[in-house]
Amino acid sequence: MKTILIDGLGLIGGSIALAIRKKWPDDRIVAVDVSPAVLEHAKRSGIIDEGSLQLNAVAADADVIVLSAPVGIIIDHIKTLAELSLKPEVIVTDVGSTKQEIVKHAQKLTEKKVIFIGGHPMAGWHKTTISAARADLFQSAYYFLIDDTLIDERHKAAARALQGLLSELDVKWLTVSASRHDRIVAQISHLPHILASGLVNMSQNEFQSSPLSLKLAAGGFKSITRIASSDPTMWTDILLSNRETLIDKINRFHQYLERVRQALAASDRESIRTFFEKAKVTRDNLNEQTGAHAPNFYDLFLDLPDRIGSLARVTRILENAKINLVNIHILEIREDVAGVLQLSFSNQEDRLLAKRELNRHGLPTIRGDQ
Amino acid sequence: MKTILIDGLGLIGGSIALAIRKKWPDDRIVAVDVSPAVLEHAKRSGIIDEGSLQLNAVAADADVIVLSAPVGIIIDHIKTLAELSLKPEVIVTDVGSTKQEIVKHAQKLTEKKVIFIGGHPMAGWHKTTISAARADLFQSAYYFLIDDTLIDERHKAAARALQGLLSELDVKWLTVSASRHDRIVAQISHLPHILASGLVNMSQNEFQSSPLSLKLAAGGFKSITRIASSDPTMWTDILLSNRETLIDKINRFHQYLERVRQALAASDRESIRTFFEKAKVTRDNLNEQTGAHAPNFYDLFLDLPDRIGSLARVTRILENAKINLVNIHILEIREDVAGVLQLSFSNQEDRLLAKRELNRHGLPTIRGDQ
Repeated sequence: MKTILIDGLGLIGGSIALAIRKKWPDDRIVAVDVSPAVLEHAKRSGIIDEGSLQLNAVAADADVIVLSAPVGIIIDHIKTLAELSLKPEVIVTDVGSTKQEIVKHAQKLTEKKVIFIGGHPMAGWHKTTISAARADLFQSAYYFLIDDTLIDERHKAAARALQGLLSELDVKWLTVSASRHDRIVAQISHLPHILASGLVNMSQNEFQSSPLSLKLAAGGFKSITRIASSDPTMWTDILLSNRETLIDKINRFHQYLERVRQALAASDRESIRTFFEKAKVTRDNLNEQTGAHAPNFYDLFLDLPDRIGSLARVTRILENAKINLVNIHILEIREDVAGVLQLSFSNQEDRLLAKRELNRHGLPTIRGDQ
Repeated sequence: MKTILIDGLGLIGGSIALAIRKKWPDDRIVAVDVSPAVLEHAKRSGIIDEGSLQLNAVAADADVIVLSAPVGIIIDHIKTLAELSLKPEVIVTDVGSTKQEIVKHAQKLTEKKVIFIGGHPMAGWHKTTISAARADLFQSAYYFLIDDTLIDERHKAAARALQGLLSELDVKWLTVSASRHDRIVAQISHLPHILASGLVNMSQNEFQSSPLSLKLAAGGFKSITRIASSDPTMWTDILLSNRETLIDKINRFHQYLERVRQALAASDRESIRTFFEKAKVTRDNLNEQTGAHAPNFYDLFLDLPDRIGSLARVTRILENAKINLVNIHILEIREDVAGVLQLSFSNQEDRLLAKRELNRHGLPTIRGDQ
């Protein structure tokens, strides 16, 4: 029987606890969290065996320690652990959103012969703050293991042990260096967040002097800025722990913007066209590469005069015809109007079959031309 | 009986033709388009009475001319119209996405005593290229009339006549100046497009050297860059016709980015936090102001193990309980996995009622804590 210590019982820590519980019911799970209520609830529902508000009160017994708090706290707790006396073969790991800073601080553990393995499961759930975790939260998601921390056979064996412990998560394991990890997430997650929040802040001035433009900010603006509603504290932490990479990314983005500005100043139609064309090719390609559907390609659109009734009719017709649906969405394109239903299919056959079935049941699709 | 000339039978021109046909069945509708097939189809389906490939072949008979092609062509055709001999009381109007350039060129018409009224209906359908228009495409959408072109009583009377002609559209009419219009759309539409496309182009390098990051670009990145898949030609036109405003916007956005870069360089936690907090407040407020729901606030999440069957069950349960739904969406958070269904409600009562009903029917919601 091993003792697993989960430090931070949020969505990720909770999901990891559940996955371990399911696969290794004999292991003892101890959790540390700032909230007595969270610990009490987790204990009552059997997710953990014991809770503690203090890491140093329970760290000594642990065979595995999973640091699953925000990045700033992970770093603090690595420092704490480096001061404590731990089991000689304990494996310490983390789930932080950035890796270079954490790996740097974890050096203190390595110096004390404490095994540290850097990790990062990509759940894609940044936007939600749900506290109810699930054992299959990460199913088929990528879980990074950080190369820099797999320094010898002892560490590599520990990584394999960790993969065994977490096998119920059913993730895709990937090994990358801390710096490459941080560059990737800077590009696909951190920089987009900065751009979205910057755009919102800049728009605020316009909106303040003109309530009209606020009413007009529908569709594209709202979807591009949605991530600006994320938790400011968490994002401040993330940015500060990925400082140098982000400074470089911002500098490079300045250059991209500057090229557009120059093309505009010179009325250089060809450059602007190339700029948009390149982006379209890459973005369309992204859909194919990640297995998602090309935008609007296998989509059907139909009116939803009576939102809930029509929706139920549509899904019933598709169910009866056993047509597989990739996505369903109500387009919020206009105020005060019931909306347009967008149905996405993975191929043209399904799309045409669905169109025929819906039309046959008196539900006309909007895009009648194909 | 009046003759209405629709110049450009795309989504917007087609929808306007349908709306006029419905309200004023006695009017004669003539359309100009580059595509003989589009004209033939429109004629056969009774949307128009006559089609022509040449504007100058049919302009002389028109009582109203609606320029509904992309901005570049609208400007060309204004020049053409200024050379033709038109009916003395003809009303020329346009639906272009930017207004200052168009209004400037329309000066030529005004000099010849031809009435020109600038307009722009905001459909929010930029992303789709559907050719099947609908009379109610703009229902409850905003339709700008450009103040600069309402220069005297004769023009104001013409604007009222236009509103009568288009009353079937059921839009909300707004009067703004051309420059204010262009500043608003620059902020909420054109600049976001530039940022999204710039982000995609910058990411391309990373993606090329690292197929891995491409696989990881899910969720946030995909939604923020979705508009980069729009039509490059149309967007080149739009940018060039709003050059000066956009150069100013890009310069100002540089400043916002630069402030973040400096805060990062100085490890200025307070500034970064304030940056994200301001953005969150504004963005959350935007949801309230435009009548949409706050993100995740009145949402329910549930697993969709069998996508189409479970979806049909969910909508049936909601329909039977007569619970009104604001939106429905399948979160594409992971590859190869059925997905998580997000249901949005307009208030907490509906949300709790839906949760109870779904749970009662054996469909557990993920966010179990509220």
